[in-house]
Amino acid sequence: MHSHTDYLWFDTKKRHELVNITDRVAGIVAASQVQEGLCLVSAMHITAGIWVNDEESGLKHDVMEWLEHLAPAGDYRHHQTGEDNADAHLKRTLVHHQVILPITAGALDLGPWEQVFYAEFDGCRKKRVVVKILGE
Amino acid sequence: MHSHTDYLWFDTKKRHELVNITDRVAGIVAASQVQEGLCLVSAMHITAGIWVNDEESGLKHDVMEWLEHLAPAGDYRHHQTGEDNADAHLKRTLVHHQVILPITAGALDLGPWEQVFYAEFDGCRKKRVVVKILGE
Amino acid sequence: MHSHTDYLWFDTKKRHELVNITDRVAGIVAASQVQEGLCLVSAMHITAGIWVNDEESGLKHDVMEWLEHLAPAGDYRHHQTGEDNADAHLKRTLVHHQVILPITAGALDLGPWEQVFYAEFDGCRKKRVVVKILGE
Repeated sequence: MHSHTDYLWFDTKKRHELVNITDRVAGIVAASQVQEGLCLVSAMHITAGIWVNDEESGLKHDVMEWLEHLAPAGDYRHHQTGEDNADAHLKRTLVHHQVILPITAGALDLGPWEQVFYAEFDGCRKKRVVVKILGE
Repeated sequence: MHSHTDYLWFDTKKRHELVNITDRVAGIVAASQVQEGLCLVSAMHITAGIWVNDEESGLKHDVMEWLEHLAPAGDYRHHQTGEDNADAHLKRTLVHHQVILPITAGALDLGPWEQVFYAEFDGCRKKRVVVKILGE
Repeated sequence: MHSHTDYLWFDTKKRHELVNITDRVAGIVAASQVQEGLCLVSAMHITAGIWVNDEESGLKHDVMEWLEHLAPAGDYRHHQTGEDNADAHLKRTLVHHQVILPITAGALDLGPWEQVFYAEFDGCRKKRVVVKILGE
């Protein structure tokens, strides 16, 4: 068995952003030399998520608008602590904060349109994603 | 360590459908001969998901109606590409597109009512699910 | 390769409850002696989930209120079976019912504010969570 761990750092320019990280994750998979296995990609900060979907600008706009509709910025109890980002915690919950990518024959085994996005909902600060690979 | 990969194909008759795949996944687990491990079941198309819940027709109706309420068909920017299925991308996001099933003593280690469903939101076309098992 | 399986039992006093299980999961990881691996934490009952987020009472109140808004208690087809908990099935779907935690250097590799919660949406009865560790 072989394991491999790496971290991706983000510091987005905008508060809300979808960053396509497919190539970066593929690079970590290649570095791991794992041929058959599972690759966890998980946002370590609780106001960001990981989203697997289409690299299409209209859809990316749609999903962010829709998340704002379902989990709007506004007044929350969490803000009594001095924070202003409760909606980002909720948006991360909807998108989910992690994904497991299968590795087959040494590469990410993705569907034809599957792309992996880091979904930032409270950006403009340094944040981390863990990539953990287990396999052979 | 042992790994095993298989794919399930779907071509649903209806645009929206919940297909119980528990037995098919259990069959792949048996074929893998893995006794202790993890089994990833992940929809490879970005308008379908995997849902673990109850095999009860009323509830299955409820969840599809509720998803339509939270992520309705309608007018989206994504449709400027000629597509008409943005809502299916959003529904997949709510349900999540994958699950990890534990394997204990050679079988799926599920709770008493846990059943695994392929959740199709834009059907009537061929689509794939990857099943990847890692264990010993 | 090494695997380790354990179960956590819950019997909450309230119907809706968020129970911080980070230390209990960390204890299982320690007992497993796995140094590098993946730890699945998955609710085995279909009206409960696993949520990774902040241990902050205001936010915990916010998320439960928000789930009630998006998946309200009410009248559902599922209730024709005699059940009254369809909303709990939907709330579990939003939160998702499982998480994979990375294990690095023998410990949970969590972000600075990541805490693991058992999210009960239909409590006051005995329920189980499976913890399955795979690694080396």
